[in-house]
Amino acid sequence: MTLRIAEIFGPTIQGEGPLIGEPTVFVRAGGCDYRCSWCDSLHAVESQYRHTWAPMTDQAVWDEVRRLSGGQPLTVSLSGGNPAIQDFAPVIALGRAEGYRFACETQGSVARPWFADLDTLVLSPKPPSSGETVDWAVFADCLSAGKGARQVVMKIVIFDETDYQWAKDAHARHPQLPLYLQPGNPEVDPDSPVDPQSLADRLGWLTDRVMADGWFAPRILPQLHVLIWGNKRGV
Amino acid sequence: MTLRIAEIFGPTIQGEGPLIGEPTVFVRAGGCDYRCSWCDSLHAVESQYRHTWAPMTDQAVWDEVRRLSGGQPLTVSLSGGNPAIQDFAPVIALGRAEGYRFACETQGSVARPWFADLDTLVLSPKPPSSGETVDWAVFADCLSAGKGARQVVMKIVIFDETDYQWAKDAHARHPQLPLYLQPGNPEVDPDSPVDPQSLADRLGWLTDRVMADGWFAPRILPQLHVLIWGNKRGV
Repeated sequence: MTLRIAEIFGPTIQGEGPLIGEPTVFVRAGGCDYRCSWCDSLHAVESQYRHTWAPMTDQAVWDEVRRLSGGQPLTVSLSGGNPAIQDFAPVIALGRAEGYRFACETQGSVARPWFADLDTLVLSPKPPSSGETVDWAVFADCLSAGKGARQVVMKIVIFDETDYQWAKDAHARHPQLPLYLQPGNPEVDPDSPVDPQSLADRLGWLTDRVMADGWFAPRILPQLHVLIWGNKRGV
Repeated sequence: MTLRIAEIFGPTIQGEGPLIGEPTVFVRAGGCDYRCSWCDSLHAVESQYRHTWAPMTDQAVWDEVRRLSGGQPLTVSLSGGNPAIQDFAPVIALGRAEGYRFACETQGSVARPWFADLDTLVLSPKPPSSGETVDWAVFADCLSAGKGARQVVMKIVIFDETDYQWAKDAHARHPQLPLYLQPGNPEVDPDSPVDPQSLADRLGWLTDRVMADGWFAPRILPQLHVLIWGNKRGV
């Protein structure tokens, strides 16, 4: 089968979410059913970049991951775009046979049977600032599909107070899901440097906001890759 | 019983290690059997600050944690100094009875039966740059004592190439322990601001070093509290 792949890169560290700091190779799928206003990966989303997405067989994707990791098993991160609009079951099967682990981040708008084969499923429903609307029935389908995964968590990006209140509602819908909050990054131009101080300030703002509320459920984490490399691609 | 307590503060987020980003109240014990050259908590270590350590009963410590957290269970982080030179079993028992969870960070130089009552035991053996020497037999005793804990991990601070090679040896001694590497912070003066860019640079250096080695065992994490607040105390 043929997959549309925007980029495969690494090894580097996972910069965010429950596997923050973990060595990984990223497989970034091309194509997305969402158009988040603040998307930081438009090169994997917008049709105008479609000509840059390589059509690759499952085996070709897997060969590239193996080459980059020197054949040493690590966690492979499926991202995008929305990786769930394609079928990654064959790639996961190839990798698991060699002892690799798989994580996937998706907004939870498309459920896939292969969610059950993941080690980590990160469902990241998009808050109001994205301009998108979450279909919570499909989100619940994604949870059901992911029942076999080792861990399933919810991650929400927070740009403002409206997003923050929305995150509290989202958590109330699924209180059993470990929750990760991440301050939004408004500086998504790959050609402009990111100011580490403003990233630190946004993390401080979100931390203060959550603590002032006495809300101890979420973990609050930044994007380490943005801290280290800004919006540079391929790291 | 009376404990020597340098400070109790929070709620804030745990800035480092396996619980990075998790809301917590810190109980910082006064006193330490080590004198690391780059210690960032000398106010809880050096005898000259001893007069600032409050003698508190177990119940008084617990009352303060409960007050700060508004009686809502969260993770309590026992730090120091070296918390293992004192007996925290009664405080842990008081907290667990109310649904609180406990984490402890210690260098692994003193083993305590109450390690088994922890949710998270972070053993942080000190690398050569510290000027201290690890007694690996005692470290193994700490591991044995912590067998009942929900998770036990090793965390190592890395200042330079010598520390890095030492960390590889330490991991080889205990390959079953999840490993966390953290770039060292040379800017420990509480009155001087920390440059977020230099923190980002150190994280980038360590990440590049580990990836260039094709070493995928450790997770690599910064100190978020230093990023947000510099070396300010009580946050």
